[in-house]
Amino acid sequence: MSTPTSEVNAASQQQMLPESAAVTKQLIVQKFGGSSVSDADGVKRVAKRVVDAQRAGNEVVVVVSAMGDTTDELLDLASQVTDSAPAREMDMLLSAGERISMALLAMAINKLGASAQSFTGSQAGMITDGIHGKARIIDVDPHRIRTSLDKGHIAIVAGFQGMSRTTHEITTLGRGGSDTTAVALAAALEADVCEIYTDVDGIYTADPRVVHSARKIDTISSEEMLELAASGAKILHLRCVEYARRFGVPLHVRSSFSQNEGTWVIPSAEDKITTQEGVALEQPIISGVAHDRSEAKVTVVGVPDIPGKAAAIFQVIADAHSNIDMIVQNVSTHGTGKTDISFTLPIVEGAEALAALRAAQPDIGFENIEYNEKIGKLSLIGAGMRSHPGVSATFFKALSDAGININMISTSEIRISVVTHADLLDDAVRAIHKAFDLDSEVEATVYGGTGR
Amino acid sequence: MSTPTSEVNAASQQQMLPESAAVTKQLIVQKFGGSSVSDADGVKRVAKRVVDAQRAGNEVVVVVSAMGDTTDELLDLASQVTDSAPAREMDMLLSAGERISMALLAMAINKLGASAQSFTGSQAGMITDGIHGKARIIDVDPHRIRTSLDKGHIAIVAGFQGMSRTTHEITTLGRGGSDTTAVALAAALEADVCEIYTDVDGIYTADPRVVHSARKIDTISSEEMLELAASGAKILHLRCVEYARRFGVPLHVRSSFSQNEGTWVIPSAEDKITTQEGVALEQPIISGVAHDRSEAKVTVVGVPDIPGKAAAIFQVIADAHSNIDMIVQNVSTHGTGKTDISFTLPIVEGAEALAALRAAQPDIGFENIEYNEKIGKLSLIGAGMRSHPGVSATFFKALSDAGININMISTSEIRISVVTHADLLDDAVRAIHKAFDLDSEVEATVYGGTGR
Repeated sequence: MSTPTSEVNAASQQQMLPESAAVTKQLIVQKFGGSSVSDADGVKRVAKRVVDAQRAGNEVVVVVSAMGDTTDELLDLASQVTDSAPAREMDMLLSAGERISMALLAMAINKLGASAQSFTGSQAGMITDGIHGKARIIDVDPHRIRTSLDKGHIAIVAGFQGMSRTTHEITTLGRGGSDTTAVALAAALEADVCEIYTDVDGIYTADPRVVHSARKIDTISSEEMLELAASGAKILHLRCVEYARRFGVPLHVRSSFSQNEGTWVIPSAEDKITTQEGVALEQPIISGVAHDRSEAKVTVVGVPDIPGKAAAIFQVIADAHSNIDMIVQNVSTHGTGKTDISFTLPIVEGAEALAALRAAQPDIGFENIEYNEKIGKLSLIGAGMRSHPGVSATFFKALSDAGININMISTSEIRISVVTHADLLDDAVRAIHKAFDLDSEVEATVYGGTGR
Repeated sequence: MSTPTSEVNAASQQQMLPESAAVTKQLIVQKFGGSSVSDADGVKRVAKRVVDAQRAGNEVVVVVSAMGDTTDELLDLASQVTDSAPAREMDMLLSAGERISMALLAMAINKLGASAQSFTGSQAGMITDGIHGKARIIDVDPHRIRTSLDKGHIAIVAGFQGMSRTTHEITTLGRGGSDTTAVALAAALEADVCEIYTDVDGIYTADPRVVHSARKIDTISSEEMLELAASGAKILHLRCVEYARRFGVPLHVRSSFSQNEGTWVIPSAEDKITTQEGVALEQPIISGVAHDRSEAKVTVVGVPDIPGKAAAIFQVIADAHSNIDMIVQNVSTHGTGKTDISFTLPIVEGAEALAALRAAQPDIGFENIEYNEKIGKLSLIGAGMRSHPGVSATFFKALSDAGININMISTSEIRISVVTHADLLDDAVRAIHKAFDLDSEVEATVYGGTGR
C-alpha cells in the first residue's frame, strides 16, 4: 500500500470478492462482540442489522458474545465464593453469559417480524477437546443450524463455548473464542463470508491510538493477517485467522457502528491476487506494524548445553498450556558447557509457567530463571518483503535513528519482530510506520468501547 | 393433631421415618430456592450445609434455583427488547439463571474441600414434553448424576429446567419447577429423602402470617399435603407433592436457616401410619387450613343445557393450558333450557382463558361471561374427616357465626373448600382454625424472605 500502484491493486482485489448481497443469495455468518450488545439498545441495533442482511436475500447465522460486563460480573461473583474455582465450573458459569445475550437477540429479531432461534455451543455442534477454559474446536456438526436456516430462521449461536467430545462437558474456548466460533461455523456451513463486527472500521496499518496517521487496509492476505494477529494486533485473534486460512473462509472485519466496507482478509493471497493471465500483481511491500505489551520475557539461565534440554524446557511450558512466542538461545559462551534460553509468553500465563519450570529445575538442571514483564514487541509485516531485500536494513536503521535499544529479534519470511523496553514501544512503532511510508493523510476514525 | 392422642401419634410416626443420617448411608436430595442463594454469602451458607450432609456419611444431590432476583432481572431485560418474547427463547434466557447459581454453589463446595459437579437440566437427564414455559417431566435419566455420586462428588442440578424429548429444545417447568426437579430426581435415584429447604420451619396448620397461633405439623400424609397445596398452601407446589406421592418419595420440608426438624410428608398414610398389628392408628381429624387469593372466578352465563356443552367449555380452557380448580354448574332454572357454569382458575391465566372462551362463543352458543378476581378460597383438610361426619356442620356453623358469606362450595373425601369475598378471607381462616382447636400456645417462627 506504500507504492503509487496500491490503489489500483486494491480496486482489482475488490472485484474478486464475493458479489454484493443484493445480487446473489449468500450464507453470511455475522459475529458481534460484547460491546455491540452491552444493553437492550445495543441488542436492538444488532437485531436490525441482522434482519436487514436477511431481508437483502441472504441466509444469516449470528454468533454473539456475552453482553458487555456480564463476564466480569460473573467472574466477580465467582471470586466472592472462592479463590480457586474448578475450571469445569468456571466454564459452566461463564457459558451462561452467551445464553442471555443470544436469547435476547433472538427475541429482538422476532420483534422486528423476522424469525430467529438461538442455540448453545453444544446445540450448534461445536465439539471441542476437554481442556476447560481454553478448549480447542475439533469438529463442528451444524445440522441443527442448517435445519433452522432451511426453515427460514435466522440462527443465533452462543460464541466462546462448546462441548467436549469425550466427557460431554461444557467447555469455553478462551481468548478469541467467539471469533473462532464464527469462523468455524462459517467453514462448516460453507458460508460465503464471515463478518466480524467490531468497534473500529477495519484493520489499520498500525494501532490508530498510537499512530494517528494509520491507514485502514482494504484487503490483506490471511497469511499477513496471521502475522499481524500473532504480533499483537488486537482486532482479530490468531486462532480465528488460522482457522479462516485453513478452511478458506473469507473474513470481513467491519464496524457495527457504520455501513462502511471494512477490511477483507482473503484466505490465500497467491490464489486471489492474480490477474486473469495468472500473473501475480505486485503486492504492497508492507501491510502494517503491530505491537504488543501483553508478553513477558523469561530467561532460563545456565542450561546444560546437551541435546534434549531445550526440548525439556519447552515441554514443561507446553504441559502448563502456555504459548511461547519468541525464542532466543545464546551460544554456549561461558566455557562451562552451559547456555541461556530466553523466550516470551503471555504475562497472564507467566506465574503458572514459572511454577512449572521451578518444579522441573532439579530434573533439567538449569541454574536460575529471570522474568521481565516490562517489555514490548514490535512487528513489521508484509508479504512483499520476501522479494525486497532492503526491508531489514530500513527497519533497523529507523530504530537506531530513534534511539531504540533492541532486546530480542525474531523473523519469518514475511515478518520482522523485535523486543524493546515497554516504555520505548510507542516511539518505535511511530518510527517504523513513518520509515515505511505507511502514514495516511487523514486521521483514523476510532469509535468508543473495546471489543471482547 | 387436635386430639390429646396426637402427640403420641406423632412420636410413633417419627420412629418409622428413615434412620438418622449418622447411622446409615443415605442418598439425600436437597433443594434450595432462590432466596437461600440470593448472594455469595447465601451460596457459602448452603455449601456448608451440603458438605455437612456429605460428611455425615451420605450421598448428596442438590437442586438449586436461580439466585434471588436473577429471574426478575432477566425478565426485565427481555421486556426491554420485546413485548412478545417467543416461549422458546424465554426458556433459553431464564435457564441461564440456574447455570449461574449451580456453578457458584459447586465452586463454594469445592472451596470447602469437598468435591462438587454441576449439571444443567438436560445433562441431569430431565426429559420433558415440548411445552415451553410450563413443560412437564416425562422421564428422568440420571446416569450422569449416578456416575458423579459414584465418584464421590456432590452433584448439583439446575432446578426448573429440562430438555424436550422430541425437539431437544431447552424447556422450563414453570411454577414449582425446582421442587418438582428435586422430587423427580429423588424418585429416579431412589433417594431416601428429598429435603425441601425453605424460609419457614415446615408446614403449619394455617399461614402463620394470618393465624399467629398456627402450629407446625410434624408429619402429614401426601394425600393431605396434596389437598393443602392444591388449596393454596404456598410452601410446596402441587406438582411436587403429586410427584412425590406417585413415586413414594418422602419429603422433608425444613428451614435453611435452622437445624430444626421440619415437616415430613409421607407418601402413603395408609401404609405408614399403622401399628405392627396392621391396625390403623387414629389419625388427627384435621391437618390444617389453607387459603388462596390467586384465583379468579369465571361464570359462563346462558349455556345451552344439552350434553357436550360443558365439555366444550372445559376443552377450550384446557387448550389454553389453563388449570381449572373448582367447578359449579347450576341446574337449569331459567325455564329456557339454559344454565350457568362457574369455575375458578389462576388469575395469571385469566386473560388467555377469557380470550379463548370468547373466540369459542359462536360455536358453544353461551350468552355472556362474568369474571371476578376479588375472591378468596378457604380449605379445611384432614384425612380423619372421612370417618367424622360432624366436620361439615362445625365448618359451616363457624363461618356463619363469623358472618362470612359463601360463594361456591367444593368438597373431596378429605377436604372442604369454599369461595368467599377476598376481603373476608383472613377472618374466615381464623374462625375455622379456632373452631377446630388447631391453635398452638406458642407463636410460629417466620424467617425473613420468600422462597421461589
